[in-house]
Amino acid sequence: MRPKLTDVAKKAGVSVTTVSRVINNYGYLSQTTKDKVFAAMKELNYQPNSLARSLHGKKTNLIGVIFPSLSNPFFAELVEQIEKRLFQAGYKTILCNSADNPEKERTYLRLLMANQVDGIISGAHNLGIKEYDNVGLPIVSFDRKLSDDIPIVSSDNYRGGALATKELYQAGSRHIYFLGSSKRAENPTDNRLLGHQKMIKELGLTTHIHSIDFEESPNLKLLSIRELLNNHHPDGIVCTDDLTALLVLRCAQELGLKVPEQLKITGFDGTSFIQDYHPELSTIVQPIHDIAALLVNILSKRIDQPHTELEQIQYVLPIKFLRSTTTSL
Amino acid sequence: MRPKLTDVAKKAGVSVTTVSRVINNYGYLSQTTKDKVFAAMKELNYQPNSLARSLHGKKTNLIGVIFPSLSNPFFAELVEQIEKRLFQAGYKTILCNSADNPEKERTYLRLLMANQVDGIISGAHNLGIKEYDNVGLPIVSFDRKLSDDIPIVSSDNYRGGALATKELYQAGSRHIYFLGSSKRAENPTDNRLLGHQKMIKELGLTTHIHSIDFEESPNLKLLSIRELLNNHHPDGIVCTDDLTALLVLRCAQELGLKVPEQLKITGFDGTSFIQDYHPELSTIVQPIHDIAALLVNILSKRIDQPHTELEQIQYVLPIKFLRSTTTSL
Repeated sequence: MRPKLTDVAKKAGVSVTTVSRVINNYGYLSQTTKDKVFAAMKELNYQPNSLARSLHGKKTNLIGVIFPSLSNPFFAELVEQIEKRLFQAGYKTILCNSADNPEKERTYLRLLMANQVDGIISGAHNLGIKEYDNVGLPIVSFDRKLSDDIPIVSSDNYRGGALATKELYQAGSRHIYFLGSSKRAENPTDNRLLGHQKMIKELGLTTHIHSIDFEESPNLKLLSIRELLNNHHPDGIVCTDDLTALLVLRCAQELGLKVPEQLKITGFDGTSFIQDYHPELSTIVQPIHDIAALLVNILSKRIDQPHTELEQIQYVLPIKFLRSTTTSL
Repeated sequence: MRPKLTDVAKKAGVSVTTVSRVINNYGYLSQTTKDKVFAAMKELNYQPNSLARSLHGKKTNLIGVIFPSLSNPFFAELVEQIEKRLFQAGYKTILCNSADNPEKERTYLRLLMANQVDGIISGAHNLGIKEYDNVGLPIVSFDRKLSDDIPIVSSDNYRGGALATKELYQAGSRHIYFLGSSKRAENPTDNRLLGHQKMIKELGLTTHIHSIDFEESPNLKLLSIRELLNNHHPDGIVCTDDLTALLVLRCAQELGLKVPEQLKITGFDGTSFIQDYHPELSTIVQPIHDIAALLVNILSKRIDQPHTELEQIQYVLPIKFLRSTTTSL
C-alpha cells in the first residue's frame, strides 16, 4: 500500500497540516520541522503529487521547465521556444532558473511534485540521478543524463566537435586547442570533446585541451584565455559555446592577433542572437526550434500514455556548421 | 449580485461544462462556441478567477509573468531576476512570451484569470488598457501604461535620454541623432525621447530623429542605419536600446567610420550580458535587480492587501551612465 499524508505526519511527529505546508512551502516553518518531514517522506518514499494525481485523475496543464539561467542567449531562446510549443499544446510553463544552485533545483522539484504539474522539462546541471528518479512524474531532459529511464534530447554534439575541428584544419590550422569543460559527467555535451579528439587523431594532429569551466565568470574566463593565447600560441580554437568564442575573439583583438589569418575560432550554439549580432563568428548551429518541439512532443506523449514503454532514451538532432570570417576570409 | 458560471452558460446557450472548458481552454471547442461564451462573459462582466478566489479564499502561489520575448537579453535578465525574487517570496512563475502577438497575450490573460494565479507582472506591448482593466487580479506593469490604476515601475527614462545626449555633447558631438521608436503611446519609454529633446534644446542644437521600430528585424534595422550614416552623417547617435547600438557600431565599422573619433554612440539598458561581452559600449544602465525587486514587492502587497488604496501609481528608479570607448577614447 502506498504511504499517505497521515503516515508521513505520524512518522514525523507533526500534524497533517504541517506536512502539507512543508510540501507546499507555505507559511513559516522551522528548518527542524522541514528536515523531520522530508526525512519521513524519504523513508516512506512518499510521492505527494502522483498520489494526488491518481486519486483525482486531474490534469493541471502546467509544466515545470528547469534551466540554469536565461542570461545565456542559448537557454533564453530554447526556453522561449519551449514555452511557445507548450502553449500550442495547451500547457502553461512554470519557469525555474536553477541558477547552478542545487538547493533551489531540489526545492523546485519538490514544489513541482507537490503542486500538481503534469510533467517536467529539465536542462539543469546540478542534481544527480537520485533526486530525479524519485520525482514520479513524466520528465524529459535536454543534454543531461538525469536517470536511466528519462529520455534525453540533444544535438549531435559528437559530430559538432568533429566538424568544427575539421573546418579549422581545412582552413589551415595545425596547432588546435579545445577550449571548454573537460569534466566528464556522462552527459551528451561530453561528446563535443570526444568528437574533437577523434577528428584530431584522424588528422594526425596532437590533442590540446585548455580546460575552462562553463559556469566561470566572463572576467575569469578572459584571464585564462589570455594565458592560453600568450603562452601556447594556438592557430585554431574549438570553443564549446559561442560566448566563450566571443571572449577569445576579443582577447585576440586586444593582443593584436589577426583573425582568421593567425588565429581561427569556432563557436557552438548558433543562436539567432549570435547570427544577428555576431555574424562574423563561425559556429556549430544547434537546431533550437527542433529541440524545443521534440522535448514537448515526447513529454506530451509521456503524459498522455504514462504506462507505455519508452521507445527510445536518446534522441540526437543534426547540427550545421555556419562558416564565417573567424575561420575563412 | 455577481454573475455565476450558470448565468454565463444560460446566456450563451451552452452547458456549464462547456463554459468551464472555454475558460480553461481545454478539449475541442469550435470557434463559434468560444465566441458565444466570451460574448456572454463580457456582457455579464463575469470574472471567473476573482469569483473562485472569493468563494474559496485559496492562494495558488502562482504569478503570471508576461513579457514580449526572451531573445532580448534585457527581458531575459529581467525575467530571470523576477523569477528569483518571486521564488524567494514563495511564488512560482508562469512564463508567458507574448511575442508581439496580441491574440496570445489575450489568451494568456484569460487563462491566467481562469486558472488561479494570484497576480500578474506584465511588460508586454500589445494590448490596450481595456483588456487589462477587466482582469480583476492584482497586476503590476513594467514600462507600460496598462490602465489608470495599475502601478507602473520603470527606470528614469527621461533622465536617461537627457544624460546620454549630454554625454555625447560633452564628448564633442554636435550633429546628434536620436535612433529609436518615435511612436507615442503614453508609455514611460517615450520619456527617452522627451529627455533627449529637452537636452538638445538646452544645448542649443537641432533635434534629429531617425525613427526605427523596436520590433523590426536586425537586418532591416541595419538597412535603415546604413542609410542614416551614409546620407545624414551624424557625429553622435543616442540609441534607445543596446542591441540597436551594436548594429550602429557594426555598420560604422563596415563603412570605415572611426568610433568614437568620427561617430560617438550610446546605448540603453546595460545588461550584464552587454557589460561582459560588449564592454566597449557606452550605455545607460537600468537597475534590473531593483526593478525586479520592486515589481515583486508591489505585487506581493497588492495580493496580501487587495483592498488597500494604492499609495502610488508611478515608480521611477535611477539610471547610470556607463562611459566607455564608443564615446571616449
